[in-house]
Amino acid sequence: MALTRKGQATRERILQAATEVIARHGVAGTSNEDVRKAAGISGSQLYHYFDSKQALIRAVITRQAEVPLVPGQPIMGALDSFDALQAWADAAIEHQEHNSGRGDCTLTSLAGELSPTDEQTREDLCNAFQRWQSLLRNGLQAMHERGDLRPEVDLDELSMAMLAALQGGSLLSQTLRTAEPLRASMNAALAYVRSFAA
Amino acid sequence: MALTRKGQATRERILQAATEVIARHGVAGTSNEDVRKAAGISGSQLYHYFDSKQALIRAVITRQAEVPLVPGQPIMGALDSFDALQAWADAAIEHQEHNSGRGDCTLTSLAGELSPTDEQTREDLCNAFQRWQSLLRNGLQAMHERGDLRPEVDLDELSMAMLAALQGGSLLSQTLRTAEPLRASMNAALAYVRSFAA
Repeated sequence: MALTRKGQATRERILQAATEVIARHGVAGTSNEDVRKAAGISGSQLYHYFDSKQALIRAVITRQAEVPLVPGQPIMGALDSFDALQAWADAAIEHQEHNSGRGDCTLTSLAGELSPTDEQTREDLCNAFQRWQSLLRNGLQAMHERGDLRPEVDLDELSMAMLAALQGGSLLSQTLRTAEPLRASMNAALAYVRSFAA
Repeated sequence: MALTRKGQATRERILQAATEVIARHGVAGTSNEDVRKAAGISGSQLYHYFDSKQALIRAVITRQAEVPLVPGQPIMGALDSFDALQAWADAAIEHQEHNSGRGDCTLTSLAGELSPTDEQTREDLCNAFQRWQSLLRNGLQAMHERGDLRPEVDLDELSMAMLAALQGGSLLSQTLRTAEPLRASMNAALAYVRSFAA
């Protein structure tokens, strides 16, 4: 369905509202009615854009996947140097520090809430995680080709370990409500990357 | 409330059933009625042991926290040598390999499903994560005192980074349905620990 500019704006307003409601109450605690109210639209308007809660959640996941790795930082350069990776880690930790004490609508929490039987939503999450892994992998590959990383480095494993550090650190930080777990996991991941410096 | 031996067995049967139902359907998709049926008991019996869904979920979390880091391995020795840590990582990866393709009722997924406003359940999860971190920290501290790790190592950061690697790797492995993310994150975490070898 091609949307007019106004339609795109309404759809975006719904997704923004849904993201905020989910951040506060979790997926299970969010009804279409909550989203409708938060977006300030009618039920039939909501239905026009998203005909089920699942369709809405899937669109939230796809939208969150477009936020490159650090919420609140929609634009991020290539992660293709030790300095750029450090800046990325610092930004993630800073974001967590400002968000400690309240929920955050991240792919991490969406993945945790995923019903094991909802195959379509799982595939959306897989795509989102794989997109993030490629952002990391592309940067590492550029470093590898430039000779910054030793020839024998396994780029798939390294980028996956970095993504896991981000996800695990975020999950623990959100639960424990302190940025320390994320700081620890990102420090460890970056030290691991640096251990492959040529 | 002190339980008789029979009462303890019934309570344990309910928790086992709840853990299995949650593994298949997630917390949101699990009703008390589902648990009652799976445990083969009456509604009044269930209510006798757990008077709300929240009470049941909290007990599941506390019980899962007693499973020391690798589900299916109720007994685990001290993680106080590089070999013991490697064996722990290998067991976690092997468990994930056998569980790929189906849900798992882990603290990782429970934490992800946590409603940001359920403060009591969040505290139970914090206790569980902190208990796991201490298991790791105690092992690392023994290695440190024995002189296996360099004096300047930050044991809090190191144990937290390992826990984050386990959680992040498990979350990605459960979503992507392959053990590779956990393998990558555990390899990275153990390499980081080894980088502090004296």
